[in-house]
Amino acid sequence: MPVGTQGTVKTVGSEDLEGLGFELVLSNTYHLWLRPGSDLIQRQGGLHKFMSWPSAILTDSGGFQVMSLSDRREITDEGVKFKSHLDGSEKFLSPEKSIQIQAELGVDISMALDVCPPYPCTKEEAVAAMQQTHRWAPRNLAARAEGQSIFGIVQGGVHEDLRAESAATISSMPFDGFAIGGVSVGESTELQYPVVKYTAPLIPTDKARYLMGVGHPQDILHAVSCGIDMFDCVLPTRMARHHTLYTLHGRANMINSKWTEHNGPVDEDSVFPQTKRYTAAYMRHLFKANEPLGARIATLHNLAFYSRLMKEVRDAIERGTWKELIKRYENA
Amino acid sequence: MPVGTQGTVKTVGSEDLEGLGFELVLSNTYHLWLRPGSDLIQRQGGLHKFMSWPSAILTDSGGFQVMSLSDRREITDEGVKFKSHLDGSEKFLSPEKSIQIQAELGVDISMALDVCPPYPCTKEEAVAAMQQTHRWAPRNLAARAEGQSIFGIVQGGVHEDLRAESAATISSMPFDGFAIGGVSVGESTELQYPVVKYTAPLIPTDKARYLMGVGHPQDILHAVSCGIDMFDCVLPTRMARHHTLYTLHGRANMINSKWTEHNGPVDEDSVFPQTKRYTAAYMRHLFKANEPLGARIATLHNLAFYSRLMKEVRDAIERGTWKELIKRYENA
Repeated sequence: MPVGTQGTVKTVGSEDLEGLGFELVLSNTYHLWLRPGSDLIQRQGGLHKFMSWPSAILTDSGGFQVMSLSDRREITDEGVKFKSHLDGSEKFLSPEKSIQIQAELGVDISMALDVCPPYPCTKEEAVAAMQQTHRWAPRNLAARAEGQSIFGIVQGGVHEDLRAESAATISSMPFDGFAIGGVSVGESTELQYPVVKYTAPLIPTDKARYLMGVGHPQDILHAVSCGIDMFDCVLPTRMARHHTLYTLHGRANMINSKWTEHNGPVDEDSVFPQTKRYTAAYMRHLFKANEPLGARIATLHNLAFYSRLMKEVRDAIERGTWKELIKRYENA
Repeated sequence: MPVGTQGTVKTVGSEDLEGLGFELVLSNTYHLWLRPGSDLIQRQGGLHKFMSWPSAILTDSGGFQVMSLSDRREITDEGVKFKSHLDGSEKFLSPEKSIQIQAELGVDISMALDVCPPYPCTKEEAVAAMQQTHRWAPRNLAARAEGQSIFGIVQGGVHEDLRAESAATISSMPFDGFAIGGVSVGESTELQYPVVKYTAPLIPTDKARYLMGVGHPQDILHAVSCGIDMFDCVLPTRMARHHTLYTLHGRANMINSKWTEHNGPVDEDSVFPQTKRYTAAYMRHLFKANEPLGARIATLHNLAFYSRLMKEVRDAIERGTWKELIKRYENA
């Protein structure tokens, strides 16, 4: 899923996403609730119509953003009281409210409101976040809207025993899919990989398994090998705005002087004609001159790279060519 | 001509310009000379290859930018000494140097280096700028590169006698086309229209007549009725980045609260599907949320509006339906 936090994947339109072959994007409950308002989007016919995107949309619950963006949070069993990062106004988010907002947005897949602890945190904090997540899970389910899927979220930090407990608890509930949350929150790859490895097998195989907020191509390949089906990540789009392109030969920093006179595409292996027509020297010029086209071409390139990665992942699984795929992306 | 100052029309790629139907863009000698350097662009195969734009390119001479952007200018008969607005380094631009840079860029149409006086200025300053422009004109012509067209520029400020003198002087030289410069430099419409009206008939009709830096649709229609053939203007792209869309019913400011709940395109008369798919409410949201897609959609919209305007201008001249055209655009 490309990430379209505010109802738009930064620098690209829905026609671009269609051209890139995506069928599902992620957007954000917290951001759209605060601006322009989920009630407004509902009156506009829902988020699909609002952003002119007829394909599928998943929204995260807003829990992560309340924790990371807002001031003066106060978590109780009822929900989270916080101040908007936009205007300081007091807001209250609960499982029922989060699901209601996601219903107003009219998305295809809603995420249960959870408590995502930061990294690092004490084990006691990880336990408290997990237990609150578990107490909220049935309330999310009870509030589910007609015709909308809802995914539950496993928490538990970097602790194997907590992950096992959380996976068992959340998996026992009738969610339509299951996510591993609380990763990619600042921990190292060395800590993240084991969490994915021992948690993924503990959630049902007959429903979608979604790893939230991951990652670089290597992280995705590792997670797929652990049994994960779905991903969202800001990396392809955020790295693009920070002049970095993914290629099979590693990440290319476009303001590096090595590209100054490079009279060919950055990525010879790219199969996306809309970005391959531009040379590395031109891309470097665009970034050095602060031209918005640089971020756009880089975003299209990285999304095309990720779109192809996921297609090749599906193909390799079907054809039994996983080893060749791992080899192909070993430097990506 | 869409304006692509730094070798890119802000927020849109060459594939977009092709889709919009443009066959000629303007770029800037001064900016490209300073960054990334016309020598680099020459080594890259010229500006067409550099920006992946096989259609035609016109560059202005850099004279206007030296006057408006750089510090500590010193104009002599030899040329202009100035300091770069990027790094303060000392530079020297002369007619020969400007034409040499434009030859390195490899553009189709080069513009003669002139002296464009600011508005307001004294008549003495307007005379001095005009006379320097006239002394430089033959030097520009003598420096012309093989296979590259060169246009001369008429100066003279807002003074009818100076415009007549300048038009006669420049028209007597074997330029490939003729431009009216020194308009759209801060003067009112009431002052600009008469300059266009009495200058345009004084330059040859058998070569292209180009009004530099103009303008709103009304200004363009007025100038066409005076006999002008070619235009460049930052307005459609700059207004777009300032959340303003051109429509047949006037300019629409997208952050105006009247659009908050508008569940349809801003411009019902638009025939450009790539922007018409987005509602006014969504456009307003994009601008309020500082999302880069807002400027891009607005830029595409305004360029499509101007592209259609110029097509309808050509059609109306051919079909003798000029009055209907004027009526159609009377509120634009």
